[in-house]
Amino acid sequence: MGPDPNDSNELQTAPLAPGLYLVATPIGNLGDITLRGLDVLRRVDRIACEDTRQTQKLLNHFGIATPTESCHEHNEHHKTESIIDALKAGARVAVVTDAGMPGISDPGSWLT
Amino acid sequence: MGPDPNDSNELQTAPLAPGLYLVATPIGNLGDITLRGLDVLRRVDRIACEDTRQTQKLLNHFGIATPTESCHEHNEHHKTESIIDALKAGARVAVVTDAGMPGISDPGSWLT
Repeated sequence: MGPDPNDSNELQTAPLAPGLYLVATPIGNLGDITLRGLDVLRRVDRIACEDTRQTQKLLNHFGIATPTESCHEHNEHHKTESIIDALKAGARVAVVTDAGMPGISDPGSWLT
Repeated sequence: MGPDPNDSNELQTAPLAPGLYLVATPIGNLGDITLRGLDVLRRVDRIACEDTRQTQKLLNHFGIATPTESCHEHNEHHKTESIIDALKAGARVAVVTDAGMPGISDPGSWLT
């Protein structure tokens, strides 16, 4: 069998492309996160969080040491500029909410 | 910090309750499977598949040796009886389709 383009191991060794990553997080059971979600959280330069304390619990559980920063309705305009500048400079940034998929009505909608 | 009821490690050590498990499988990238999905596929007694060859690729990729059996539109009535009998006897059975969540219009709707 040749290399599989869907091989998740490839994901973990190929460089992570610069850009913005929206990562869905579990809504009730930590086991509901995907392998790719964990891989992205582990490999981005930073994670923009609705509540860094909430996300830190998830990161601690999975032994992920990526820096976090808060990015919520009270600072979103300011933070959006900072994130966009970083993206233009080639950063890899993940966006998460406390639970579920960011970018709909949750924090993140301003960025997407 | 006390034990977390959502701790996915607990899932992997507590006995898996008998019953029917609907497991969503990736639709394009194998990394999109969840930790809990893998855990269930690894620990059930058997996996009822839309196409065992397709599911076997997923299982091989993740080193999962659980027996599979086909369960699709051409044998679903017969297979449903067999699965229900097994469930009554306390079996743990997972149901998967080739990709996505079983039980809507895919095979599995007859069972659910």
